[in-house]
Amino acid sequence: MAGNTFGNIFKLTTFGESHGVAIGGVIDGCPAGVTLDLDAIQAELDRRKPGQSAIVTQRKEPDTVEFYSGIFEGVTTGTPIGFAIKNANQKSKDYSHIKDSYRPSHADYTYDQKYGVRDYRGGGRSSARETASRVVAGAIAKQVLANVKFNAYVSGVGPIKLEKSHDEIDFSLTESNIVRCPDTETAGVMENYIKQIRKEGDTVGGVVSCVISGVPVGLGEPVFDKLHAELGKAMLSINAVKGFEYGSGFAGAELKGSAHNDLFNTDGTTKTNLSGGIQGGISNGMDIYFSVAFKPVATVMQDQETIDKDGNIVTMQGKGRHDPCVVPRAVPIVEAMAALVLADYWLLNRTIKK
Amino acid sequence: MAGNTFGNIFKLTTFGESHGVAIGGVIDGCPAGVTLDLDAIQAELDRRKPGQSAIVTQRKEPDTVEFYSGIFEGVTTGTPIGFAIKNANQKSKDYSHIKDSYRPSHADYTYDQKYGVRDYRGGGRSSARETASRVVAGAIAKQVLANVKFNAYVSGVGPIKLEKSHDEIDFSLTESNIVRCPDTETAGVMENYIKQIRKEGDTVGGVVSCVISGVPVGLGEPVFDKLHAELGKAMLSINAVKGFEYGSGFAGAELKGSAHNDLFNTDGTTKTNLSGGIQGGISNGMDIYFSVAFKPVATVMQDQETIDKDGNIVTMQGKGRHDPCVVPRAVPIVEAMAALVLADYWLLNRTIKK
Amino acid sequence: MAGNTFGNIFKLTTFGESHGVAIGGVIDGCPAGVTLDLDAIQAELDRRKPGQSAIVTQRKEPDTVEFYSGIFEGVTTGTPIGFAIKNANQKSKDYSHIKDSYRPSHADYTYDQKYGVRDYRGGGRSSARETASRVVAGAIAKQVLANVKFNAYVSGVGPIKLEKSHDEIDFSLTESNIVRCPDTETAGVMENYIKQIRKEGDTVGGVVSCVISGVPVGLGEPVFDKLHAELGKAMLSINAVKGFEYGSGFAGAELKGSAHNDLFNTDGTTKTNLSGGIQGGISNGMDIYFSVAFKPVATVMQDQETIDKDGNIVTMQGKGRHDPCVVPRAVPIVEAMAALVLADYWLLNRTIKK
Amino acid sequence: MAGNTFGNIFKLTTFGESHGVAIGGVIDGCPAGVTLDLDAIQAELDRRKPGQSAIVTQRKEPDTVEFYSGIFEGVTTGTPIGFAIKNANQKSKDYSHIKDSYRPSHADYTYDQKYGVRDYRGGGRSSARETASRVVAGAIAKQVLANVKFNAYVSGVGPIKLEKSHDEIDFSLTESNIVRCPDTETAGVMENYIKQIRKEGDTVGGVVSCVISGVPVGLGEPVFDKLHAELGKAMLSINAVKGFEYGSGFAGAELKGSAHNDLFNTDGTTKTNLSGGIQGGISNGMDIYFSVAFKPVATVMQDQETIDKDGNIVTMQGKGRHDPCVVPRAVPIVEAMAALVLADYWLLNRTIKK
Repeated sequence: MAGNTFGNIFKLTTFGESHGVAIGGVIDGCPAGVTLDLDAIQAELDRRKPGQSAIVTQRKEPDTVEFYSGIFEGVTTGTPIGFAIKNANQKSKDYSHIKDSYRPSHADYTYDQKYGVRDYRGGGRSSARETASRVVAGAIAKQVLANVKFNAYVSGVGPIKLEKSHDEIDFSLTESNIVRCPDTETAGVMENYIKQIRKEGDTVGGVVSCVISGVPVGLGEPVFDKLHAELGKAMLSINAVKGFEYGSGFAGAELKGSAHNDLFNTDGTTKTNLSGGIQGGISNGMDIYFSVAFKPVATVMQDQETIDKDGNIVTMQGKGRHDPCVVPRAVPIVEAMAALVLADYWLLNRTIKK
Repeated sequence: MAGNTFGNIFKLTTFGESHGVAIGGVIDGCPAGVTLDLDAIQAELDRRKPGQSAIVTQRKEPDTVEFYSGIFEGVTTGTPIGFAIKNANQKSKDYSHIKDSYRPSHADYTYDQKYGVRDYRGGGRSSARETASRVVAGAIAKQVLANVKFNAYVSGVGPIKLEKSHDEIDFSLTESNIVRCPDTETAGVMENYIKQIRKEGDTVGGVVSCVISGVPVGLGEPVFDKLHAELGKAMLSINAVKGFEYGSGFAGAELKGSAHNDLFNTDGTTKTNLSGGIQGGISNGMDIYFSVAFKPVATVMQDQETIDKDGNIVTMQGKGRHDPCVVPRAVPIVEAMAALVLADYWLLNRTIKK
Repeated sequence: MAGNTFGNIFKLTTFGESHGVAIGGVIDGCPAGVTLDLDAIQAELDRRKPGQSAIVTQRKEPDTVEFYSGIFEGVTTGTPIGFAIKNANQKSKDYSHIKDSYRPSHADYTYDQKYGVRDYRGGGRSSARETASRVVAGAIAKQVLANVKFNAYVSGVGPIKLEKSHDEIDFSLTESNIVRCPDTETAGVMENYIKQIRKEGDTVGGVVSCVISGVPVGLGEPVFDKLHAELGKAMLSINAVKGFEYGSGFAGAELKGSAHNDLFNTDGTTKTNLSGGIQGGISNGMDIYFSVAFKPVATVMQDQETIDKDGNIVTMQGKGRHDPCVVPRAVPIVEAMAALVLADYWLLNRTIKK
Repeated sequence: MAGNTFGNIFKLTTFGESHGVAIGGVIDGCPAGVTLDLDAIQAELDRRKPGQSAIVTQRKEPDTVEFYSGIFEGVTTGTPIGFAIKNANQKSKDYSHIKDSYRPSHADYTYDQKYGVRDYRGGGRSSARETASRVVAGAIAKQVLANVKFNAYVSGVGPIKLEKSHDEIDFSLTESNIVRCPDTETAGVMENYIKQIRKEGDTVGGVVSCVISGVPVGLGEPVFDKLHAELGKAMLSINAVKGFEYGSGFAGAELKGSAHNDLFNTDGTTKTNLSGGIQGGISNGMDIYFSVAFKPVATVMQDQETIDKDGNIVTMQGKGRHDPCVVPRAVPIVEAMAALVLADYWLLNRTIKK
C-alpha cells in the first residue's frame, strides 16, 4: 500500500489497523527547538475520541499517545517523532458476522479485490481510527505554527445549516456544545436531529467548515501544489469526505468577475475575501476558509441486503457502536490536516528565495 | 518554486511562462511499448487552444507541440518524453500597463510577495497557458489507458445548470456545440449568456463535470492518496478552480445512510452509485464522476481600482483578450488531469500484490 | 530532519534514538500476500545485536521486535507494517561525561551546530542502533524476494584481506566464525587481530563485501536511479562507511576496455563479470557484487583531547562498551540495505512496460 | 522509466536520447533572485563537449543550451527553468551496424530486456550525452552557491596516478592541460598514455577526484540522506562509474581509530581531515573531498565477438568516434553533480530549525 505518508518537508507516515496491536506514526521533518505541550496533544486526541458525548459512538477507547523519539527534555530535537496509540480492544467478536461479507458503501469489497487479502476485523486500515494518528501530528503542527489559528466547526448536519458566513463566527462557542456548532441555537437543533437519527438506527452526513487565521503571505507552490489543492487533498483523504470548496466555492461559479474580484486596500489586504485567502495558489494573508462535505456513516443499525465473497445474497444485520453523525468528531481531524498542510508549506516556503 | 511535478510513477513536470520562449514539460514513467497517435495529442491541444470559437479569447496561439525524446518509430520507449510548445507571441506590449500594479484576484500580488521578483508580462507562470502542457501529457495518458473513457463536459455557466445526472448524458453531444454542454438546448442558453456577459465586459464562472468509465476495480491508495483525493488535488490545481465534489458530493452530506448506501448486485456492481465509483479511496469499477467549480476570470473589461507596488491607488483599465467564461476550454484540461491521475494509479496498482 | 525514509515503492521510515524509549519504523509498500517467517526476522536481528560474541560490544540489548500492524494471520495485508524495538537501557549515566563535549570524529559537533539542540545521551539518532530497524525491514524484503540470495561477508579487517574473488566464496562458511569471514584461516587471523586491537583500547576499520545472486534481468532505473547508484547510497548511508565499489571497482579504472568488456554467451549471460551484474544501471542477471569500506569506530578506550561547547580544550576519557571493529555486525546490515534496494526496484520494474 | 529526477528541493529532471531531436531538462526549485551568468553556463558545457582536444572524441556537437523559462531579465524568478540542447547530428547511419546486436558491456542488452523496445541509434538514453543536461543544471547550482568552490580534477588514468593528496593540489593548473590533471608532469605522462591507448584502438579507465571548499557547517540529512550518501549516489549515477570513496575512503578501512580520529581545534575545525569534511552525514565545514572511479569506455576500435537479438554470435567491428578515456570530460560532470547535491542540501537545511 503506497500513500501512507503525507507532506513534503513536515511529513507524517501512519500505520495501524482498527483491531491490530496499535496505530501510530512517524513525523519526519518537524523542526528542532519547538517546546511541546504534550497535554495539548492529548487534548486534541480527546476531542476526537469515541465515547465523549451522547451523540457519538459509545466505544471505549482511551486513545493515549506514547512518544518514542524525537523529543528530549520537552523540546523537539529535529529527529523523527515516533509514536503509538495502543488499541484497547483488539477482540474481534463484534465483527465475525462480516468476515465473509461486504458491507455496502464500505471499503470491504474494494480492499478484498485490490489486495486479495483483508483484515476483516472491522474496518482494518480503512477505519477512521487511523485519523487519531493524524490528530497527534496535527497537534504538533499547530504548536510549530504558534501564530496561526485553526478553527473548524460544524456548519451542517443533514439538511440543517449554520446560516453564518466564515467571518461571522464566534469560535469560542465551538466547544460549548457537543455538536461543535458555534451557534447555540443551531447546535441545539442539530443535536436533536442527530439523536432522532440514532433512534431510527440511521446515520446522517454533514459539513465541517474551517477558518485559518494568521497565515503569512506567500505560502503555496503555485502550479500543481497550490495551497488550496493540497488542503483539498488533505481533506478529501479523510474518511467519508465527498467534497471540498474554499473561498467562494461552488457558489462562486455562479458569479460574474466584476462581483467576484477582491479589490485591494492600500496595505495589500482586500476589501472582500471571495478568494478565500489564496490567490494563484499562494496565501495572501487574509483568512483561509473552506468547507468539507461528509457523507453519512455507512454502518446503519438496520438490516441490509448485501453479498458475500462468493456473490451470494446475504442479509447483514446492523450491529456495533457507530457514530450516527461523524461531523462532531471530524472537527479536530479537519484542523489537524489543515495544520499539517500549513506547517509543511511554511517550511517549504523557506527555500524559495536566494 | 516547488510543485511543478505531478504524479508518482507516471509523472509530469512542466515549465514555462505565458510570455517566455516556450512552455513544455517532461513526462517520466510513461510505460514502454505504447503506440502513440500524435494527431490525437494535437487534437486535444486544439480543444484547449485560444481562438477556437466566438466565446473564448481571440488570442492567436497555434499551440503546436514538438516532441524531443521518448518516442521512437511512433512507439514510447520508456524513456522520458520531453516536449515544448513555442510561444507565438512573446511581445509584452499588451501588459506594460500592469508592470507595477497588482490586478485584483490575480496572482500578481502573491507572486511578488513570495518571490520578490515577478515576470510581469501577463500571468507568467500563473497563467492558465501552463495547462497546455497538462493537456499534452493527459492526451498521452489517455492513450496509455485505452480502455478507460474520460468524458468531461460543461454542466454550469453562471446560474445556468445542466439538469441531468451523470448517467443521463449523451457524451456524443459534448463537442457538438462551442460551450461543450452535452444538451443542445441548455448549450444554446449558455452560449447566449456568455455572449451577453462578454458584451458587458464582464466574465462569469461555471462548472465542469466529468465521468470516467471503464476503470478497473482496485485503483487508489486508500489512506492519504485515496483516488478521489488525488483527483481532487488534480482538479484544484487547475487555475480558477474553487471546489471539487465526487459522487453524491455536497448533496450527499444532507442524506441519511440508509438512503446513501449503494447496495450490491451479485456481480459486485452496485444498484446505485452515490459512492461515485470509489469506496474507501479505491475504485470499485462503477463510473467515477465528479464536478469542478470554476470562478469567473478575474480580468474584466472594465476599469477597476487597485494598488501598485508602493501601495498607491491606481485605476486599472480593462484590456487584452480574455475568456469571458473559462469552462468551455477547461473541459479538455479536466480530462487531461483525470487521465494523469488514472494512468499513475493504474501503474501504482501493479506493485501492491506479491 | 529529513531523510528518514528509504525507497520509492517499498519504503522504510525509521525513528528512534539510542537512549530513547524505542526505535522502530514503518514499512510502506510491502506487497500483500507474503507469508512471513517472523522467526527469520528475529534471527537477522540477532546477527546484528550487541553481545553476540567476544569481539563485539558487550552491551546487553535483547533487540526484540514487536509488530504493530500490516500482518494478519501471518500474511502481509498490503498495509503499512509498523514495528518497534524497545530500548532495554535508557539510563543515561554512562554518557554524562560527554554532555557538553564533542567526541572527535563523532556526529556530536555537527548535530549541535545543525539543530541547535542535541540528545547528548550517547549517539542519539546518529547511533548505529538505528540500523536495527533497517535489519527488520531488510529481513522482510528478503522474504518478499524469496529467489534472490544476499550473501555479505567480511573481506577485510584493518590490513588483513580475504584474498578470494566474489565467485570463489563458500557462503556456508560465513556464519561459521564470529568474524563472518567465509575463509576459516583468514577468519582466525582477523579474530586475533581484533582481540589485540581491543586490548590496545583501540578500534580498527574493515571491509564488507556482498554478492547478490538470482537477480532478475531488468532491475534498475538507468539515469539517476541506476541500480548500483541506489545500492551505493544505501551502503553509504550506513554508519561509518567511507567507500563503495561494485564490479571491477577502483581496480577497473586501471584497465583497458579490451580487457574490461564482458563478452556475451549466446544465452545473454557473460563470460566474465567485471560489470558486477549491472550494465547501464540495469541488472543483467549475473551476480551483483560490491564492497563497502568501514572506518574504525571513533570511540577508543584511550584519553583524547577534544573541545567542549564553549571551545575549551578538555580531556575525554575512553569509556563505555563499544565494538573494536564494526564489520562482523555490519554484515546483516549490508544485506538488509541491499534487500531493501532490490525489493524496491523489483516492484518499480513492474511499472515500466505497457 | 523512473528516476529521471535528481534532488529534493533543487531538482533536475532530464530528457533526451543521443540521436533524438534534443536533450534537455527542467530545473525546479531554483531559488528566485539569483542573477545568472549565462556565459559561465555555456563555458561549463564547453568543458564537457566533444572535440575539445586531441584526446577526446572528435564528434562535432556544439552543445548550445537554449533556456525556455524561469529567467527574466537575467534573474531567476523562482519558476522552473526549462532548457534544451538540440542534437546536431541526428543521422543514424553510423549506428546501423549495431541495430540488432548487443555491444559488450554497454546497456544494449539490458535496455532491450527491460523495456522490450530500444532506440538503437547509439546509446539512446544510456549515452553519456545525457550528462550535458546535468552540466547545465550544475552550472546554475554553482551560481546559487557562490561561496562554495567545486574543484574536480583527474587523479588517475589507467595505472598512472597523481601522487598528491587533496590538500596539496594547485587547482589553477587543472585547466592548464587537456587531461585536466593539476600537475604538469603527471598530466604529460597521462596525455601520452591516452594517445598510445587510442593508437591501439583501445580505451582506458581513470579516476576523478573532487574537493569542495567553503561548505557551511550543517549540510546533510543524517540517516538515509547523509551528505556523502547523496554525493555517492550522484557520482555513481554518472555513466561508467564503478566506485566512490570520500575522506579516508577504502584506505581508512585499514586504519586504527586512534590514527583516524580528527582532533578538534578550539574553533571547531579539525587538525586532520580523514573525515572528508563530513561527520555523521553532516558537513563540518572542512573541505569535502572524494574520488570517483571510471571504467574504460566499452566501445573499442577492435573487432569483438558478440550476440544479436536472436542469440547468434556475430562479429562487431570497432567504429565511430569515441573517447579513449572519459575522465578529462568527466571533470565538469563530477563538479556539476556535486553542485546539484550541495545546492539541494543547502536549501533543505533551511527547514530544520524552528
